[in-house]
Amino acid sequence: MAEHDTRYASTVDLMQALRTIVGAEYALDDAATLERYASSTAGSQAATRPLAVVRPAASAEVIAILAVARRFEVAVYPLSTGKNWGYGDACAVGAGQLIVELARMNRIVKVDTELAYAVIEPGVTQGQLAAYLRSHHTNLWCDCTGAGPDTSLVGNILERGFGHSPYGNRVQHVAGMRIVLASGEVLATGFGHYRQSRVSHLFAAGVGPMLDGLFTQSNFGVVVELGIWLMPAAACVSQFVATVARQQDLGPLIDALRPLRLDGTLRSVVHIGNDLRVVSGGACFPFAAADAEATGRGTAPSSRLPEPARRDLLARSGAQAWTVSGCLYGSAAQVKAARAAVRTALASTGARTAFFDQRALKRGAGVARWLDRAGSASAWCKARAAALSNKVALGRALLAMAQGVPNGRFLAGAYWRRRGGLPAGFPQCADPARDGCGLMWVSPVLPMRGADALKLHALVAPIFARHGFDLFETYSLINERAVCAVLTIAFDRDDAAETARARVCKRAVFDAVMQAGYLPYRVGIEDMGLLDPDGDVFWQVAARIKAALDPQGTIAPGRYEPAVARRLTWPAVG
Amino acid sequence: MAEHDTRYASTVDLMQALRTIVGAEYALDDAATLERYASSTAGSQAATRPLAVVRPAASAEVIAILAVARRFEVAVYPLSTGKNWGYGDACAVGAGQLIVELARMNRIVKVDTELAYAVIEPGVTQGQLAAYLRSHHTNLWCDCTGAGPDTSLVGNILERGFGHSPYGNRVQHVAGMRIVLASGEVLATGFGHYRQSRVSHLFAAGVGPMLDGLFTQSNFGVVVELGIWLMPAAACVSQFVATVARQQDLGPLIDALRPLRLDGTLRSVVHIGNDLRVVSGGACFPFAAADAEATGRGTAPSSRLPEPARRDLLARSGAQAWTVSGCLYGSAAQVKAARAAVRTALASTGARTAFFDQRALKRGAGVARWLDRAGSASAWCKARAAALSNKVALGRALLAMAQGVPNGRFLAGAYWRRRGGLPAGFPQCADPARDGCGLMWVSPVLPMRGADALKLHALVAPIFARHGFDLFETYSLINERAVCAVLTIAFDRDDAAETARARVCKRAVFDAVMQAGYLPYRVGIEDMGLLDPDGDVFWQVAARIKAALDPQGTIAPGRYEPAVARRLTWPAVG
Repeated sequence: MAEHDTRYASTVDLMQALRTIVGAEYALDDAATLERYASSTAGSQAATRPLAVVRPAASAEVIAILAVARRFEVAVYPLSTGKNWGYGDACAVGAGQLIVELARMNRIVKVDTELAYAVIEPGVTQGQLAAYLRSHHTNLWCDCTGAGPDTSLVGNILERGFGHSPYGNRVQHVAGMRIVLASGEVLATGFGHYRQSRVSHLFAAGVGPMLDGLFTQSNFGVVVELGIWLMPAAACVSQFVATVARQQDLGPLIDALRPLRLDGTLRSVVHIGNDLRVVSGGACFPFAAADAEATGRGTAPSSRLPEPARRDLLARSGAQAWTVSGCLYGSAAQVKAARAAVRTALASTGARTAFFDQRALKRGAGVARWLDRAGSASAWCKARAAALSNKVALGRALLAMAQGVPNGRFLAGAYWRRRGGLPAGFPQCADPARDGCGLMWVSPVLPMRGADALKLHALVAPIFARHGFDLFETYSLINERAVCAVLTIAFDRDDAAETARARVCKRAVFDAVMQAGYLPYRVGIEDMGLLDPDGDVFWQVAARIKAALDPQGTIAPGRYEPAVARRLTWPAVG
Repeated sequence: MAEHDTRYASTVDLMQALRTIVGAEYALDDAATLERYASSTAGSQAATRPLAVVRPAASAEVIAILAVARRFEVAVYPLSTGKNWGYGDACAVGAGQLIVELARMNRIVKVDTELAYAVIEPGVTQGQLAAYLRSHHTNLWCDCTGAGPDTSLVGNILERGFGHSPYGNRVQHVAGMRIVLASGEVLATGFGHYRQSRVSHLFAAGVGPMLDGLFTQSNFGVVVELGIWLMPAAACVSQFVATVARQQDLGPLIDALRPLRLDGTLRSVVHIGNDLRVVSGGACFPFAAADAEATGRGTAPSSRLPEPARRDLLARSGAQAWTVSGCLYGSAAQVKAARAAVRTALASTGARTAFFDQRALKRGAGVARWLDRAGSASAWCKARAAALSNKVALGRALLAMAQGVPNGRFLAGAYWRRRGGLPAGFPQCADPARDGCGLMWVSPVLPMRGADALKLHALVAPIFARHGFDLFETYSLINERAVCAVLTIAFDRDDAAETARARVCKRAVFDAVMQAGYLPYRVGIEDMGLLDPDGDVFWQVAARIKAALDPQGTIAPGRYEPAVARRLTWPAVG
């Protein structure tokens, strides 16, 4: 996989042509660069080594790069900031493609504070936009994900990722894309192609066929700009966290939340994590204890928490079987009404529910400080003060994220099986792919019904166990009717055998959810060839559109293009 | 325009083939049928006469019809129920096409009461689905428009129409389409193409490129089924109606409502109509008075209300310059909070605002009955009772529509310039196209800003005046950032000169809003050739997709296909 494709007459000429476009420092094919882009949380076997990396600063350069690519018959793989962790990271679907990284195109082209939207380029990160909105006192918030401040908004949106706010279903809050096609033509969607348009970013559909959806999870063009809707700051924001004690409580929990999601009481994406998801946010895998125990066991290879360590971590973190996290937005009266509705619904499930807002956190911080001072003589007080401080810090991060301020701490879970634990300075510059984290995600969608969540859990838990992995589960109430589960396989990437086992496990989980009809909302680069087992009309139609828009197949061959992805050589799994 | 295309070797053979598929009674080319389908609210000059009409009952028949059409090289024009009034009605974009009317495909395939959605065929009308949901005690509501109970949901959705409820932005509440392509292949969008899918109608995007948008406002396929999300019945529904006295109050009104739409207080589409829109809902044009006046005037031809009649109608209807109509949904507490926010916002504009719910209407009806009885001797009481009864009836219809029960009475406006007034039995079986109503719509989208609404009004009002037409305006707050204006040209279709003048006026209005950058969200068949004045990349891309999916151009040539529409012969206008 790490071999260059040999069909290119002259990489030297290609690089020369690219350097002419972007400057020498932004067209690179040295070994270190290629290595860096070939790192993946799925392990080196699953990574692809690019032909070269080029970093344009403007659309005109993207157009010129595409012309060069067509001339040299090189495939280009566009990235925003390349932080598609757990799904292929900065790797192309096939080896030997030319990475076009758009991180330097990071202009916030426009912010309209009255109509609440921004126009941004692919390099704009969620941290950057959040900082801009704050420092310009716009009173607007941008939806953000838990992937930290340095990740691209456009990149995530084009993968149809989702965040935590009422704008968390991100693709529904995009209007007006600008796309460079393989031909070099520039396509503006919606009304944006009318030069005189006054409504390019206000009404996504425009007139005539709506094309935006085509450019998400596809390889039909290079999106160089899009309009993203921003949320007016709510007068009142109340976070709630609820826990239930037993595994099987997940079912009633989802059934209790569904009516609130359906009737609009819960306008934001609600997340439900299992105990290990909570634990992994605050601790790394206790290798020492586990290795000691494993030595004496001599059973099948396992990366699971030994029972004593598990009990200990659960006790220390206070994590229950399931933790719900959601947020209410509105006027004081609206939030009060919503809080009552959430409280009533969750009470029926036996959940313990806590609501908190900025004021409550301030109170908590005050109490922690008081305890700390008061307890100068008492270890018990010190410990309580520290625990409360931690809780307040987590609460602050959650509430900030709900208001569009990203926080790298939520990436901690990705470092669970990293032997070195969290890197120095974490979460500053955290990058799970380059920090050597082993991580793969399978993300099936299921009906928003307790019975389905329990069925999915019952389906995948034995597969994780069989392959010797702990199961990290999140269920996100992504819209009013569907839940998106994110199942995490965390592994020690420095351990080749464990990495291989993780990949077999991932494939088994993937196959199981596909067969059960819980289909993935998004897939990693390795799984793109598995999306069309039946030679379906849907994928034939997608292929015909691809051929119409990019007849040479220049852009990202194999990306959400099952037939082509299958032809790219992947190591056999399973 | 009414001539058959002569390229078909044998219409007799074609009809024979069609009859074999659907049965003789459902494949028709007799003169009466062709005449009936060639009626348009835009007048006979703007209508196209089809080659024949075929009415399949199932997808398999649609597939067979397409095979026949390809073989005979006939263009097919799919309709749902053909009630696209004001935008082309049941007419194809070009003459001599084979109308495929899908009204007989009217199965409600599935209703899931837990997850709140239905799967419907194109023939399902909003009245039919509403009745089903009521009679099965589903506690679910379907969004509905003011176009009456007999109009197709699918037809309206594919034109990207909008209704009145929180699900009024209809395309956003669709998941999982089934589409017959020109080739006869059946494409299922979203997750629906995976046979084992459990989430086909719960998560529209599926995995891979999202194709749904392609099949709205286009001619890429024949949609034969779709999943439509239903709204759980709200515990509390409160309608509000607000009025302002002066034309220029429209600006502050929109500016006052925008924050409420943006922050989610107003979750449904809010409509603002001008005085004549209100008047035309309760009265027809006073031809006698106007003709008398015109005779003595001898000025330029005008279809406008003479000033005395206008004053009289306004006084009698009580219509103010602008009337806002919207609805609040939720728990009692939520609605109370929203009501307070709306009241405060509208108070700043000087609007008079009234809220009413089912209970208030019951009280009103009681008072009207009492007045009627009490006033047996008093004409004043009788008149008050009648006026109150009318008001209650209108309120009931509005509130019912907000809860998904369509009402034909809102079609009355379409009959404004019909010489015969409302037909007997109205609104039963009302069909403005076949009832001879003269009606055309121009529907520009504008930013949700008072200044833009005033600018648009200032732009179009003189054009209507110049061509001698009264201006009927509605401004609908279609999403959180955009307003869709519907500008109505109402004319006497029995008057050829007036019809010609109306078309010139329509074209002038269309050109003006296009040039001003207030672009139409939807257009009539006559205007489809005007959508691409610049030979834009957008339309080139659309044409490439069309060629990829329908290389023979079998389906609806010209429909949202400007280059082809221009080649179809339309009488010159202007």
